[in-house]
Amino acid sequence: MSETSPASVVPDDAPGLGEHADGPDRLVALSDGIFAIAMTILVLNISVPSGLGRADFRHALHDTWSQLGAYALSFAVIGGRWRDHRRVFQLIGRTDGTVVHLCLALLGAVALLPFPTALVADYGGSEPLAVTYYAVVVGAINLLLLALFLRAWRRPALQARPIPERLARGTIVDFGAASLIAVAAIVVAFAVSPGAGLLTWLAAFPAGVAARRLRGEDAFSD
Amino acid sequence: MSETSPASVVPDDAPGLGEHADGPDRLVALSDGIFAIAMTILVLNISVPSGLGRADFRHALHDTWSQLGAYALSFAVIGGRWRDHRRVFQLIGRTDGTVVHLCLALLGAVALLPFPTALVADYGGSEPLAVTYYAVVVGAINLLLLALFLRAWRRPALQARPIPERLARGTIVDFGAASLIAVAAIVVAFAVSPGAGLLTWLAAFPAGVAARRLRGEDAFSD
Amino acid sequence: MSETSPASVVPDDAPGLGEHADGPDRLVALSDGIFAIAMTILVLNISVPSGLGRADFRHALHDTWSQLGAYALSFAVIGGRWRDHRRVFQLIGRTDGTVVHLCLALLGAVALLPFPTALVADYGGSEPLAVTYYAVVVGAINLLLLALFLRAWRRPALQARPIPERLARGTIVDFGAASLIAVAAIVVAFAVSPGAGLLTWLAAFPAGVAARRLRGEDAFSD
Amino acid sequence: MSETSPASVVPDDAPGLGEHADGPDRLVALSDGIFAIAMTILVLNISVPSGLGRADFRHALHDTWSQLGAYALSFAVIGGRWRDHRRVFQLIGRTDGTVVHLCLALLGAVALLPFPTALVADYGGSEPLAVTYYAVVVGAINLLLLALFLRAWRRPALQARPIPERLARGTIVDFGAASLIAVAAIVVAFAVSPGAGLLTWLAAFPAGVAARRLRGEDAFSD
Repeated sequence: MSETSPASVVPDDAPGLGEHADGPDRLVALSDGIFAIAMTILVLNISVPSGLGRADFRHALHDTWSQLGAYALSFAVIGGRWRDHRRVFQLIGRTDGTVVHLCLALLGAVALLPFPTALVADYGGSEPLAVTYYAVVVGAINLLLLALFLRAWRRPALQARPIPERLARGTIVDFGAASLIAVAAIVVAFAVSPGAGLLTWLAAFPAGVAARRLRGEDAFSD
Repeated sequence: MSETSPASVVPDDAPGLGEHADGPDRLVALSDGIFAIAMTILVLNISVPSGLGRADFRHALHDTWSQLGAYALSFAVIGGRWRDHRRVFQLIGRTDGTVVHLCLALLGAVALLPFPTALVADYGGSEPLAVTYYAVVVGAINLLLLALFLRAWRRPALQARPIPERLARGTIVDFGAASLIAVAAIVVAFAVSPGAGLLTWLAAFPAGVAARRLRGEDAFSD
Repeated sequence: MSETSPASVVPDDAPGLGEHADGPDRLVALSDGIFAIAMTILVLNISVPSGLGRADFRHALHDTWSQLGAYALSFAVIGGRWRDHRRVFQLIGRTDGTVVHLCLALLGAVALLPFPTALVADYGGSEPLAVTYYAVVVGAINLLLLALFLRAWRRPALQARPIPERLARGTIVDFGAASLIAVAAIVVAFAVSPGAGLLTWLAAFPAGVAARRLRGEDAFSD
Repeated sequence: MSETSPASVVPDDAPGLGEHADGPDRLVALSDGIFAIAMTILVLNISVPSGLGRADFRHALHDTWSQLGAYALSFAVIGGRWRDHRRVFQLIGRTDGTVVHLCLALLGAVALLPFPTALVADYGGSEPLAVTYYAVVVGAINLLLLALFLRAWRRPALQARPIPERLARGTIVDFGAASLIAVAAIVVAFAVSPGAGLLTWLAAFPAGVAARRLRGEDAFSD
């Protein structure tokens, strides 16, 4: 059979080994798993040594506030990126190699986030490098989300349904702005202070909500 | 196309980027993942150092009883909340931004529980603060379950099917009572002793079963 | 509406809050998650300190053989129990509270197994207690599988399809025998040696395969 | 009923306890879970001690580069094997005991990979044994993927649809070549240097892409 031409063996609508590989179901299942695990192992950064006396225990428990803050921040960041991932994959009816590679790179950045989270918890108040590391990883996640969306937008064959241009533009602005804010946080962390860098970045949350409100997205857009 | 009115681009029944985002499938998959991981990493709190002699090994193994107790307690607590989550999401046919945010906040509290579990295992017998921390997190989970249910109950558009009022009232009583018991456990932990606080809280299990029996829920209600 | 009788509010085929809760889909998803995580975090028991010289590195790497053996054993044990769980849940079309509670207890024992696995890796050659702990947890998993199957077998309303009596008997023998072997391993571990206890238990694998062959189950029974 | 012949109790198309066990759905769900967890817990190998001064912090952060490299490598390796697993299971419509056992063995090797990843991060620059360990595990994963594919290819009863011979040959070449490259990396690691062994292995990525291009697989083959 290998003597016949490929076209006769594998017709256009029966890609053989790759058949049904186009569907995003397993890629979405892998993604949900990695998002869920990355969100849950954040808690492993929070601990109090055992065997302490009362005064030391209370002191150690008090010291976990920065770790708890970093936990809440990263849980919200990953949760928010999961929503973005869900939005993009609602548009995707088929996957190709580029979509799979972009998604795996995105998941690699998501799964890495617990490490810079620990850096920010321990050194976020004093070391600009810790905030920078965190911002670079979050910025990379946003850029990869943008790249995934652009891939889906430019390839109608990958789309589950046509993407309205107004929504495409809004999504590009959302993901692009999120990437820019990460860069701004790095600059502020070095020019002003690491804490100011974090605050710059936190300011993006209400700005994003306001932007979505201005575009008139209703309560059911999620 | 951005000059045309949104309504003409995106008809009422085709919300575009948000299309099919309303379905709770991926939110439920993420939730099951986080519940499963939070339940499984509880075991990381239980350990015996390697390289001990026989007497020290037996002593160290004996000392894991409090960790095993905390493991069993938190596994039951998270498992029970997973059942509640399943009950609520059986009623939800569509999600909106509020449901997603409430669910993510709930998952953030669930994923945090391994930390106060470790606190209770190590300090539950002597430190009211350890029991308080645990009770606050469990109380927050119960309150967020209540908020999720109320959101679904008040928005018929989100419901998979109409919610009978009798069941709505029973659910509100269940979730509200669970939240109140967490508060009571905190008070008892400080006023009497940490152990009494834990016992207060354990007493809620048979009370909940009795309450459900009284309301006549049959064996198939789960 | 709460004044009307329950029957009028909630007809037999519309159990309201519990509606569709009967389906095992989410319980199976939670189970697959916990089985997968318990199997994967076994690897966290295997480690070599960093910064060693060549001789010390090779010595430390050699010392990981017992941890690797315990990893392989527990991975096979949990994988095998996952197959049993899958077999039981193929029969279950609806769940009730008892099925959910039995399944959660089973998952609690599965998620605990990484701890006795570490005990066996570190102390399995010298401490009967380590082997006993392991055997008790595996025995409990087998007993809970048996209980789950019995519940499904005795309640036709829970069955996805009628269970042939021959297969029911074979399953009961399988799960019961596995529980008995765990007890035998404990006795041998104390009476002879911990290593002999482990070997007793390992001998059960070929015996199980032989038993299934004798009953004439074909290659597609899994 | 046990007196009647098996054939009369269990007709050919109703395998009873094993019924619907043939479907790969739960095996795929377990696999996605284990792949996702193995990819995510890789991050636990990367850490910086807390409480360091600025100079020590920067030094420690700089030292994480090798761990970050090992993280990226293993994330890509497991992600790539997940794609191969997905390709194979697109062809499988039913499972038998051999498929389940091969898949569980494959998952056992995947879940083990975080350990040799840590070895390579800490000792990859100086110890051939570390690179060898890594290559053996990756080679085993590739061989088990090959075995899974061969099982599916030779048993038409297991196939979701007929497998074109051209694609079968391409897959066998792919998986066999990946196994051979792992062996080559071991040889080079011992004969030349551990670093050269790793580079040998990295060279396989572009070679694999080139091979697939030469066979004319289009962008939608994934």
